[in-house]
Amino acid sequence: MACICDTKYKKLDKNDIDYLTSIVGKERAFSGEDISEDFSHDELGGVSKKPDILLDVLLAEEVSKIMKYAYENNIPVVARGSGTGLVGASVPIHGGIMMDLSKMNKILELDEENLTLTLEPGVLLMEIGQYVEDHDLFYPPDPGEKSATIGGNISTNAGGMRAVKYGVTRDYVRGLEVVLPDGSIMEFGGKTVKSSSGYSLKDLICGSEGTLAIITKVILKLMPLPKKSISLLIPFKTLDKAIETVPKIIKSKSIPTSIEFMERDVILAAEEFLGKKFPDNSADAYLLLTFDGNSKEDIEKDYENVAKICLDEGAIDILIADTDERKEGIWSARGAFLEAVKASTTEIDECDVCVPRNDVAKFINYTYELQEKFNVRIKNFGHAGDGNLHIYVLRDDLSKEEWDKKLSEVFDCMYEKSTELGGKVSGEHGIGYAKRPYLFKSIGEEQRQLMNRIKLAFDPKNILNPGKVCE
Amino acid sequence: MACICDTKYKKLDKNDIDYLTSIVGKERAFSGEDISEDFSHDELGGVSKKPDILLDVLLAEEVSKIMKYAYENNIPVVARGSGTGLVGASVPIHGGIMMDLSKMNKILELDEENLTLTLEPGVLLMEIGQYVEDHDLFYPPDPGEKSATIGGNISTNAGGMRAVKYGVTRDYVRGLEVVLPDGSIMEFGGKTVKSSSGYSLKDLICGSEGTLAIITKVILKLMPLPKKSISLLIPFKTLDKAIETVPKIIKSKSIPTSIEFMERDVILAAEEFLGKKFPDNSADAYLLLTFDGNSKEDIEKDYENVAKICLDEGAIDILIADTDERKEGIWSARGAFLEAVKASTTEIDECDVCVPRNDVAKFINYTYELQEKFNVRIKNFGHAGDGNLHIYVLRDDLSKEEWDKKLSEVFDCMYEKSTELGGKVSGEHGIGYAKRPYLFKSIGEEQRQLMNRIKLAFDPKNILNPGKVCE
Repeated sequence: MACICDTKYKKLDKNDIDYLTSIVGKERAFSGEDISEDFSHDELGGVSKKPDILLDVLLAEEVSKIMKYAYENNIPVVARGSGTGLVGASVPIHGGIMMDLSKMNKILELDEENLTLTLEPGVLLMEIGQYVEDHDLFYPPDPGEKSATIGGNISTNAGGMRAVKYGVTRDYVRGLEVVLPDGSIMEFGGKTVKSSSGYSLKDLICGSEGTLAIITKVILKLMPLPKKSISLLIPFKTLDKAIETVPKIIKSKSIPTSIEFMERDVILAAEEFLGKKFPDNSADAYLLLTFDGNSKEDIEKDYENVAKICLDEGAIDILIADTDERKEGIWSARGAFLEAVKASTTEIDECDVCVPRNDVAKFINYTYELQEKFNVRIKNFGHAGDGNLHIYVLRDDLSKEEWDKKLSEVFDCMYEKSTELGGKVSGEHGIGYAKRPYLFKSIGEEQRQLMNRIKLAFDPKNILNPGKVCE
Repeated sequence: MACICDTKYKKLDKNDIDYLTSIVGKERAFSGEDISEDFSHDELGGVSKKPDILLDVLLAEEVSKIMKYAYENNIPVVARGSGTGLVGASVPIHGGIMMDLSKMNKILELDEENLTLTLEPGVLLMEIGQYVEDHDLFYPPDPGEKSATIGGNISTNAGGMRAVKYGVTRDYVRGLEVVLPDGSIMEFGGKTVKSSSGYSLKDLICGSEGTLAIITKVILKLMPLPKKSISLLIPFKTLDKAIETVPKIIKSKSIPTSIEFMERDVILAAEEFLGKKFPDNSADAYLLLTFDGNSKEDIEKDYENVAKICLDEGAIDILIADTDERKEGIWSARGAFLEAVKASTTEIDECDVCVPRNDVAKFINYTYELQEKFNVRIKNFGHAGDGNLHIYVLRDDLSKEEWDKKLSEVFDCMYEKSTELGGKVSGEHGIGYAKRPYLFKSIGEEQRQLMNRIKLAFDPKNILNPGKVCE
């Protein structure tokens, strides 16, 4: 029971294709050349493979029937949302069946008395934001990729900008309907606020990257919408100075919604990419803070308090963005960092370690040592307020062999450093396929085997998204 | 693999007793008559049994050695904190080894930069509160039983008064060191704020009631201490009126820290029990709200907004407790409700279902129907803000047989109603031994078996706290 067996999966034949097609109908089933290349990879590439059959599902009952057939016939299955992942979690590396859940995209119920939103897994993050704001409500998690589905966000326990004050996706998942690998449909959690009723299966599904069950319905917790927000862009002479200020902000009684850090070279890349000027690019490093609340006065008291802390710690200036236009200017640049970095080179790969908040500067400085040592460009930005960094290694003009070798060496160093600091391999992007070796090293063989046994408790035949996370 | 086998456990012989005693030393090992009666039951009674050996442990390494021996020799083990549980979770129903972790009670590190507190599992809730407040910090979870250990609180995912604004114990557990049933020591989570690095084992341990692993170290998340708080006691003509106001408060942009409800008869019982007058006992039902913040003005704006909502919804009055003395008067009564109810009869049993917030009135009215139907006294109070009710059935002068029969019938009705409303069997007290039949009925056989398979992934020989939760 300790390790996952090397099961031989069944190769799909015409009978399988015909039966699976009959479940959803011909219009929603694709095989062979009819499957778009898009479904063979996710946003970062690296690993790619097409499924043998792609099924657009619309109902939990369809998911259940397909899963049941796969279970009986030993066929691997992968569920996919928008495909915006960065670690290959939704790539069908063993072929088999891919279920596309992006068209299960209905908002089912807004319950204003319990402040819950019930929806299908394919609803996009941007749609949720708009819908709840139209009802004067708020779904706090705010990952950068707004065209991700909520199912995908739950599967990676996505974090985002507002985690400092509001927490991550897990904290807003009240209930889930899922289909297990044997096809049975189950509900975990619900509209209730508290539970101490057996193991928290809902929390096990959050962050499990589609390896334990397929999410077919979601109940999210909402909050009242804060009426106002304001952003502060705070230039510092050095990155160290900026980062060292963060624990002091966190300890003040004025909790910002977000605390991002950025350096001049990433800002310059974003300016070039967007063709727009950032409000300031004269300093080496910046903190970008947001405060939200219900009145201008509430927020003012908070940000004045924090501004004072920053100035005491050596901030050069405090730039206040209190109009929608100014905030948009700053945040659209922040939102474009990944694309800007991508556009500045031939290929990138990414490390999103999460380290203790007071080790952020130490870690970033280490990446600069690596930049020198390995003679490769490395760019950083990320969530200083919660220690979750996004570090990009740039291929530039390296040959495939050089790139693979260098990337692997640089990553080995970074993940080792993260573990040494008590950090985690991934803060919010997940492990998927690409980060498994680093997870294994970080948690050790015994804990990996424990995770594998949990996987088998859900999926004894190991047919659901095999070869991912802990396998 | 689907169900837990009827393993025959080894009966402890002299060799076992001698070896286990040698691990901790004679001063910390007790067997036979030397074991106090206290260790045979928890706070509510109902089920009782003494262990064959009681070991006071002080180190994770001791826990590991004992567990390893138990694993090799097929001996059941139960971990115990303060024994303040209410569902028999810490009762060694199969005898065997009991480890008392209450003397692993050291606070190990306050990390003011990461806002974490690292401590041993036996530290009491009241000690944590005092310690962090002395450092101008805040551990928000606030269960009524302040002499519970943090290990116990994590094991039941305890909730408490402040869950409306701040969430439950799970939300403040950053990291755990645990000993698995085979004796291996593992770390789940850490000081990092975010993680998407494999299955969330930390979240699986929270609420698992000592059935998956033994917690030997805890990293808690802290917050800055709010400077001020204020309580409002709000009388209503009827309970329905009071409860119907709650969803409107939740939806306002002024989130209270806590929203409790109480009825006159429970207040009268508390007055008698404490020998002290409650500020008011003229109304049938009350809401008790608390607001916290960093200035009087911040809080005032919030509570004035909510007071207006309550008056619009028919509140008779708004009684403000803004001095420590007044707050103490109200909250000490609230804190004494359970003891007061206990003191008013011969025996009680309790149901702590959690229903959707807007079904609280419906559920409580149903308990009054049951009171009539079964001719038995039932008392209610609880956390209106999160739908978590504490409903006490009173034995009074019923014979043992009458009591057992009536209690079982009343509970059957209550738990069925809860499930019908989409509620959970337990909001914060857990399942333990006593509530298993209701959990089984509520989640169904397939989900119970899934939980059992997860149990076996941790504990293949089923030696850790057997016969609890999902078994």
